[in-house]
Amino acid sequence: MLSSKLVGLIKFGVRNNIFRGFRAQPDFTKNRYQVERGFYNYLQEPHLRYFQDLLGYEERVLTNLSDLEKYNVDWFQQVRGSSAVVLKPKTTEEVSKIIVYCNQYKLALCTQGGNTGVASGAVPVFDEIILSMELMNEIIEIDENSGTVVCQAGVILEELDNALAGKGLMVPLDLGSKGSCQIGGNVATNAGGMRVMRYGNMHGNTLGLEVVKANGEVLDCLTSVRKDNSGLHLKNLFIGSEGTLGIITKVALQCSTRPKSQHVTFLGLQTFDKVLKTSKKAKHELGEILSAMEVMDSHTIKWGKEHTNLVSPLDDYPFYLLIETAGSNVEHDSIKMNEFLESALKGHYVLNGVVTGEPSKIQSIWAIRENLPQGFKDYGWCALYDLSLPVTEYFNIVDETRDYLKNHVEDVFGFGHLGDGNLHLQVLARKYDKWLADDLETFLTKRILDMRGSMSAEHGLGFLKRKYLPIVNDHPSYTLMTDLKKLLDPNRILNPYKVFP
Amino acid sequence: MLSSKLVGLIKFGVRNNIFRGFRAQPDFTKNRYQVERGFYNYLQEPHLRYFQDLLGYEERVLTNLSDLEKYNVDWFQQVRGSSAVVLKPKTTEEVSKIIVYCNQYKLALCTQGGNTGVASGAVPVFDEIILSMELMNEIIEIDENSGTVVCQAGVILEELDNALAGKGLMVPLDLGSKGSCQIGGNVATNAGGMRVMRYGNMHGNTLGLEVVKANGEVLDCLTSVRKDNSGLHLKNLFIGSEGTLGIITKVALQCSTRPKSQHVTFLGLQTFDKVLKTSKKAKHELGEILSAMEVMDSHTIKWGKEHTNLVSPLDDYPFYLLIETAGSNVEHDSIKMNEFLESALKGHYVLNGVVTGEPSKIQSIWAIRENLPQGFKDYGWCALYDLSLPVTEYFNIVDETRDYLKNHVEDVFGFGHLGDGNLHLQVLARKYDKWLADDLETFLTKRILDMRGSMSAEHGLGFLKRKYLPIVNDHPSYTLMTDLKKLLDPNRILNPYKVFP
Repeated sequence: MLSSKLVGLIKFGVRNNIFRGFRAQPDFTKNRYQVERGFYNYLQEPHLRYFQDLLGYEERVLTNLSDLEKYNVDWFQQVRGSSAVVLKPKTTEEVSKIIVYCNQYKLALCTQGGNTGVASGAVPVFDEIILSMELMNEIIEIDENSGTVVCQAGVILEELDNALAGKGLMVPLDLGSKGSCQIGGNVATNAGGMRVMRYGNMHGNTLGLEVVKANGEVLDCLTSVRKDNSGLHLKNLFIGSEGTLGIITKVALQCSTRPKSQHVTFLGLQTFDKVLKTSKKAKHELGEILSAMEVMDSHTIKWGKEHTNLVSPLDDYPFYLLIETAGSNVEHDSIKMNEFLESALKGHYVLNGVVTGEPSKIQSIWAIRENLPQGFKDYGWCALYDLSLPVTEYFNIVDETRDYLKNHVEDVFGFGHLGDGNLHLQVLARKYDKWLADDLETFLTKRILDMRGSMSAEHGLGFLKRKYLPIVNDHPSYTLMTDLKKLLDPNRILNPYKVFP
Repeated sequence: MLSSKLVGLIKFGVRNNIFRGFRAQPDFTKNRYQVERGFYNYLQEPHLRYFQDLLGYEERVLTNLSDLEKYNVDWFQQVRGSSAVVLKPKTTEEVSKIIVYCNQYKLALCTQGGNTGVASGAVPVFDEIILSMELMNEIIEIDENSGTVVCQAGVILEELDNALAGKGLMVPLDLGSKGSCQIGGNVATNAGGMRVMRYGNMHGNTLGLEVVKANGEVLDCLTSVRKDNSGLHLKNLFIGSEGTLGIITKVALQCSTRPKSQHVTFLGLQTFDKVLKTSKKAKHELGEILSAMEVMDSHTIKWGKEHTNLVSPLDDYPFYLLIETAGSNVEHDSIKMNEFLESALKGHYVLNGVVTGEPSKIQSIWAIRENLPQGFKDYGWCALYDLSLPVTEYFNIVDETRDYLKNHVEDVFGFGHLGDGNLHLQVLARKYDKWLADDLETFLTKRILDMRGSMSAEHGLGFLKRKYLPIVNDHPSYTLMTDLKKLLDPNRILNPYKVFP
């Protein structure tokens, strides 16, 4: 048996991705998926020299294969590009010069933030030049009075949030990947996460953007005022466009007041109907302090207990709800939360529940939910579906998928952001099976379209889901999207093979 | 002296615009402002017959001059069009047919919601056909579980809110004009109002739109899920586009939980520095229940007392703050508000203050703020500026304008949505003076651009502010806006003379 110290070290390594190098890399995307290289030029010596003259020879123009590896493979190890160069600009002017050059010589570009996406939108498919934003990491201005921040696009979400914390402010966005993901990528993908139900999405929170167009022009929409109706709202065109229309170089955000009090309750429930009723009850009783509402089914928790270090404070129940509050007054919030739990138990909404306001306990309850993706990632083949649907249908689709696939897969799991109607449906199999994958996809797409849901709630389309674009959007919308792409990037040098099929 | 009954009747009449017909109408826009008619066709008998065949002969195709009056003149009586026909479709299909016809025969269209705008974006400039949305007023679906609503664009804001009230929900938008304005117009102008600081803007709250393009195609982006990242976010292109890119026919909104408790405090303060400090204190102490923060200077209140039926619960102070909270627990909210006021008084943040949770008293405090526009509207010439700026500069610009214009105008007033940095700066003169207006404009534009504010925070550009488009936006942004207009409305039939100069 391994010593507990060794077990600890291994766990630390897994958590921090230290063993990544030892895992087999995924096959090259160009081999694994059916995709044809576009008519772009290949990178040649003179191109490289231009970039080296612009950015210097070593640190900011990476060409060593070993250096390139982490930029060519996505976090979820689903795809692998074969780019031969990573460029690391520090200024908008450098980004503009790079893009003008690429546009002139028809070199394809893949902009990369923290490389934490799960739809493979930020990793090259073939040999696209990787434009890493990691050195564009300056926080330019925090305005305490207005509650706003302006920064470069490459600032890491957690670092931005830490800088705001001292001023009683916070980024109105929280993601599991906050330690690596960048604010520019968050905007470019309209990132969601756990607390959209409270703080809204990036369209609501982004005040201004600076964007470099495919022709190198810089759009200065970097206002940091909260209200601005002085023209078409260009910035919103780039939010959620996944790097296909322009390169976001600076971001202005509105910040929320940092809560002084946090509480979490973890509940066991009998049926999904009770989950719905409890969720409505929470909305009305916890009102303005409600900050997250996550649901998990018994399959998910059971699997988590067996395959990750998940420790649940409750016994086994068909459904689990994690409800979080964040507010300005510990006493008031605690009363609200305890009264809510008490009446939920009394009224037979829930079968069991714990509530806590202690940071360490809050963290361990959140760990149940947050460690799930890691657990799935390390097992055989996992099909990830990131669906939006009317909440009344939330678990019907999980049951239907389970029925549909019975005996063909290991199991089907349902969990996600109930407050936003965002379900993460995961199908786990021992290994990749093309027939199964295609069949599952057809089945789910039809069901989701029938109920007017979304096949990509928060992850975007990237490379892996680009085929959905003409399927989930009606023809006039699809046509307008392609018209916008033509208008903004006529040579299609920006993040090719992504979003647009 | 008039009997009190008669005074009451007159007040009722003024409030309800009954005397409007007796007031002199403004001059025709085409005469008063320098603007040239575009190369559109004039409405002719065959056109009219087509519309009559489509919509019927009387109620839905208005051609009587007396019927047309209220559609041709804006609420603020700043502009007057000379349209000869109002069309009232009931369905998206009818809108599409109208627009296809207009596009084919190059007839200009002006879409009109509740006609409550103050930048004259919804009233024809020349003889544009008026497309009134008032009969497209069906609330299609309220989903209590998801907290969403889908409706036609012509639903009146207050009616929508009333329909949601019974389900414990609310429209996350509140405007003085809620009894007349329509949700489609709210979206098309990215309407703001008093509670943007709490509930966010229309980009954050609009889940989906159905839009008819200038070629008659219907864009079905009418999802009502809270998260959807499955393609470019087309709906946002139309939010705030003021009817120049397409006609919004249906809207899906996310709704907020309706608060059960409301409190208001009205404060008198010595300096603007104290206003800022108090506002920061409020954000941190009232946190999640803070729902509005309005500021007014002494000039504004003094003028209001003299010219409207404004009754202030406080004596005279240099500045006034109105702070509102909305929450789920009366007791908690009352404690928070009272403790806030107590410590603000003790800490010499404020000189005096009242607080109330009684609906009638809340209403009378809000009336101070809400009646101001009506007061200015009925006096000589009033230049309205709807500015966004860093809050530290909020009243500097009022002082500077007062200094700059001294002796040339009646007075300069500053009030507005402090929580959003949105200042309504109003300059009052006995009569319109072109030199003064132009000079004032040059002065303000320069100052606002210097501090990266906005010349139109929430009112939009409409007709009256369209000249700002190329001034306040940098050249690449302006060019992209015109490119988008060309792409979406090549014949420029949609709301001409608006937004684009």
